[in-house]
Parts: sequence; structure tokens; C-alpha cells
Amino acid sequence: MTQGPEPTLGESGEFAVIERLTVGRSRPAAVSVGPGDDAAVVDAPDGRVAVSTDMLVEGRHFRLDWSTAYDVGRKAIAQNAADIEAMGASVTAFVVAVGAPPTTAVARMTELGDGMWAEAEALGASIVGGDLVASPQWVISVAALGDLGGRPPVLRSGARAGAVIAVAGELGRSAAGLTLWSNGIDGFADIRNRHLVPRPPYGQGRLAAEAGALAMTDVSDGLLADLGQLATASGVTMDLDGEALRTDIEAVTEVAEAAGADPWAWVLGGGEDHALLACFPLGPPPGWRVIGAVRSGAAEVLLDGAAWPGSPGWQSFD
Amino acid sequence: MTQGPEPTLGESGEFAVIERLTVGRSRPAAVSVGPGDDAAVVDAPDGRVAVSTDMLVEGRHFRLDWSTAYDVGRKAIAQNAADIEAMGASVTAFVVAVGAPPTTAVARMTELGDGMWAEAEALGASIVGGDLVASPQWVISVAALGDLGGRPPVLRSGARAGAVIAVAGELGRSAAGLTLWSNGIDGFADIRNRHLVPRPPYGQGRLAAEAGALAMTDVSDGLLADLGQLATASGVTMDLDGEALRTDIEAVTEVAEAAGADPWAWVLGGGEDHALLACFPLGPPPGWRVIGAVRSGAAEVLLDGAAWPGSPGWQSFD
Repeated sequence: MTQGPEPTLGESGEFAVIERLTVGRSRPAAVSVGPGDDAAVVDAPDGRVAVSTDMLVEGRHFRLDWSTAYDVGRKAIAQNAADIEAMGASVTAFVVAVGAPPTTAVARMTELGDGMWAEAEALGASIVGGDLVASPQWVISVAALGDLGGRPPVLRSGARAGAVIAVAGELGRSAAGLTLWSNGIDGFADIRNRHLVPRPPYGQGRLAAEAGALAMTDVSDGLLADLGQLATASGVTMDLDGEALRTDIEAVTEVAEAAGADPWAWVLGGGEDHALLACFPLGPPPGWRVIGAVRSGAAEVLLDGAAWPGSPGWQSFD
Repeated sequence: MTQGPEPTLGESGEFAVIERLTVGRSRPAAVSVGPGDDAAVVDAPDGRVAVSTDMLVEGRHFRLDWSTAYDVGRKAIAQNAADIEAMGASVTAFVVAVGAPPTTAVARMTELGDGMWAEAEALGASIVGGDLVASPQWVISVAALGDLGGRPPVLRSGARAGAVIAVAGELGRSAAGLTLWSNGIDGFADIRNRHLVPRPPYGQGRLAAEAGALAMTDVSDGLLADLGQLATASGVTMDLDGEALRTDIEAVTEVAEAAGADPWAWVLGGGEDHALLACFPLGPPPGWRVIGAVRSGAAEVLLDGAAWPGSPGWQSFD
């Protein structure tokens, strides 16, 4: 028997594909109603729920000639999870809405779902509902729910002079990987992959909150841009210590030499690594590195006391 | 001074537009952190949260030459709200992710936001967060959160023989309006508008749950299709009473005559009205009309005891 062409979304239909995507998945005890009804029901044990959403558009936030569908699924979940972690919460559940052309192979959609589930399970969370629609290109929108565990949320506005600035996770890798992909430079598989799938430091958001973090966000648009958000919201000066960023610079130096690029532009201006960035009154907890100090003064970000002249980071409509 | 061209998303930039969309909006007491941080924080007083998501794609779910941006905003919120109502919950909050071309006028985006907010406020809910990205066409993805008020969720699977089938809200109007728009038939402003902005019977989901509804869903794909979901999930036969659907038929008869169409196809097969459909052990509460009976037998939907030969309803990839 010969193998026919792969069935498409248009041939299989919405309900059959959703069945393929949802059947046999795990369901944590916190999910009392999972996929398949009009809405899911998820425990919110402390009487509040943290919620955020991010949308990824094919050609803008990912390319299907660079990423597998599995990678795209992991990335969509990871970047939404980072927003919940950045409140000091633990992710409990996701809902996902996906648009794709009717000509898309069902197998690609299953891979996307597998990537989403793999990343969600790495967090101890699950995908509790979704929507699947026809769209001219792939569009993936995720909403993430989180549990604050009885703690106050860690806002962007709580930084104050005298605190330290600390980071958990990686800086500059995604931008370095993007340069490799964009310029067709082979090798550096690990860095190339970092652009496709970020590695947020799962669990560190909660640990930071428990350790008394004053303010927190994740690095989605770039270190300077996102630290600038904390500076503006808190009304303080953020002074980065260039020497403390040395380990990030070193991690991408070889790539920078191969690409003829400035590693500082990646570490200071590159987004999408989804490291966590927080201010602590004393030292940070294990898993965090101090990279600067909060000072009173204008709401701005400095590097070793001076403004950095490069690009401050990503904007959606650039 | 002459009026310059309207500024676009690309000219204004993501952050300025988000500021325009969020500043000065109301915030209910249940929202402890609103837009502007990494995630929002919303009360979940009974220790659980109902959550669902729906995506709308330009050209597929709405047309900007038929709908104003304000209408699109109302529709996006309304159809997501209906999913929460269909669990017997009250909507508390929405997060919205929007993709649009960089050439989109900021004023259109503000109108979209105004429509979303107007519909959310009609529910006593608010929009607590979002994302705004570049996309080749408009894409709107909403996730809705709801409060079950200490009640069990009303699932699709709880119908049992002997119960009555009842509906709150309208049937067939959206499909009738679509026929008018598609065929360029003028007049019938009210029905034409029903296609652009559905009118779910807000509050009836909670009232149905309080009145002991056994099973519930909303009519998004069509009465036969959605009642079929209840039949399948519950393992029962749903027998509609044609005479009880007479008021819906009459509401679209004049349009059907003008369009040369069959009003039964609209009332039985037309989706997007987002009426609520529920089964009650005895009579339904005020605001609901009995339209049939649940019987033991095969999981199917009948009209006056027989299968209806027309199209059963909408599928995403048709």
C-alpha cells in the first residue's frame, strides 16, 4: 500500500484535529474541567489568578523555514510562561488559539501541540482549552494563568534606591542566534537553537518573590528596554555593571567574531531570551546574578554610569 | 491648520498605542493589577477560575468593509463571554491579543478597543491585559475568565432523558444578516447588525446554573451542531419541537422572502448568535423558552422526531 499525501486541516476538519490535539494528554489535579467543553475550570487556590497573553505571527515572530512546528509550540508557551513567572507566580494552565491555512498538514499541527505540551509539562502546567481557526498564515495566541501562592504580585514599580539588580537566565543568546540565521552562518547549533526556543529560568519567579524581590519583569524586548520599564515604573535610575555582564558577553563572543557583530548589542539590546530581571533589597537568592544597582535619580538605564548609545530594543511595529 | 493624515501603528509604535488603549479605563474592585505589568491579577473568589479562548481572523470571521472596528471589538468580546456564560459562570475579565498591519490607523485600533470595553462593561467585566503585534491582516484573540460563584460548572455532558431543552437569546439572526450582506440586499438594519454584533443573553448562564441546568452550551456553530455536542457528550437524543421555534422563524421570515432563502436553514443551521442552550430537569427559569425534549436513544438531534436534511452548521476549515 502506498502512502497517500498527508491529510490537511481542511480535509480533516476542526473537530477531528482538535480531537487529535487533545486526546491522551495529562491533566493535573488543579484542572477540574479540561479541553472539550465551552470553557475549562482551573483551581485558583489563593483566590486570585495571574493572567497574561502574547500573540506570535508567522513571518514576524517565527519562520517555519527556520523553526519546526514543535519549536514554535515550545516558544509560544515559554514566552507566555515568562510573563507569569515575572509576577512571582507559578504557571497553572494555558489556553491557546491557533490560526493556520486550511492546506496545513494535520501532522504539523500535532507537532505544534506536542511542543506546547512538552513545554507546559516542564512547568507542571497543562493546556486546558483552545481554538483552531483558518488564517492566511500561522498565528498563535496563548493566555497563561498563574498562582501567586498567597504572595503579593511582584510589580514593575517596586524598585527603590539601594537595591541590587539581578538576572536569572540568559541574555543575548536569542539575538546572537537571529544574526546567525539571518546571515546564513552555519554552526553554533546551541546558539541558533536559543533563537528558536527561549529557556526562561522556570521556578525562579516564585523563588524571587519568596526572597523578597521588590520589582521584576522578563527580558522580552531587551535588557535595556525592559530594565527601562522597571526604571520608569519605579522612578529610579538603573545602573548596570558592565563587568557583571561579562559571562553573557563571553557566551556569544565567538559567534560575534564569526558574524562581525558587537556582542554588547546582543546582551544589552537583544530580546526574546526571557531571562528574569529583578531588584532585591539585599542579595538575590541562589540562581540569580547581580548585574547592577538601583540609584535615586532620573528614570533611566545606565551602563557603568553612562548612557549606552546603541539601540534600546525591539518594538512591535518597527 | 490643516489636518494631517491619521497616524498609523507603525508611526506611533506599540507602547504609545497601548497607552492610548488603556489610559482612563475603569477597573472593577476584582482586578487588583490591571494592564501595564507583565501579567494582570484578578480575584477568583471561589478558588477556581473558568477560562476559554476564541480567535477571530479578518476575512474569515469579520470583514472591515462590513463591520466598523467598534463592532469587531464588541463581537470578539461577546463570543468569548458566551463561552463563560455557557459554563454557568459570570465573566470577570478578558485579556486580548491583537495583530494588525503597521499601516493601520491608530484611530481604528482605538475604536476596536472602545468596542471591546463597551461590551466588557455591559458584562460588569474589564480588559485586564493584552498584546499588540504586527500581522498581515487583523487577528483578534481573546481569553475570558469567569467566576462560578461556588456552583459546579454546567457541562455539556449532564443532559438526561426527561429533561426539557430550552434556549435564551436569539436563533438564526446572524445567518440571516450574513445572507443580506453577502447578497448586497439593503434594509433590515437590525438583522444586518445582528450578524456584525451578536447579542448573547448576558446573565442567563448564571441564572440557568442557579435554576439547576443539567447541561449547557452556546450556539456558536448552529442549533443542530451545538445541540449535537450536548447529545454526544450526554449520550441522549435531543428532539426539537418545530412549533416552539416559530418565533425565531417569524423574526427572519421577511428577510428570507427578500433573499429567497429558507428561514429554517438559518434557525437550525446558522451559527454566531451565541444564544444559550440548556437542558433543565423541570421547567426553565424566566428568560428561557422550551424548544424540545431530551429522550433516551442514539446521540443525535431530531426535529419533530425526524432527522433534518439540511447542513448541520459551521466548521472552521470549510
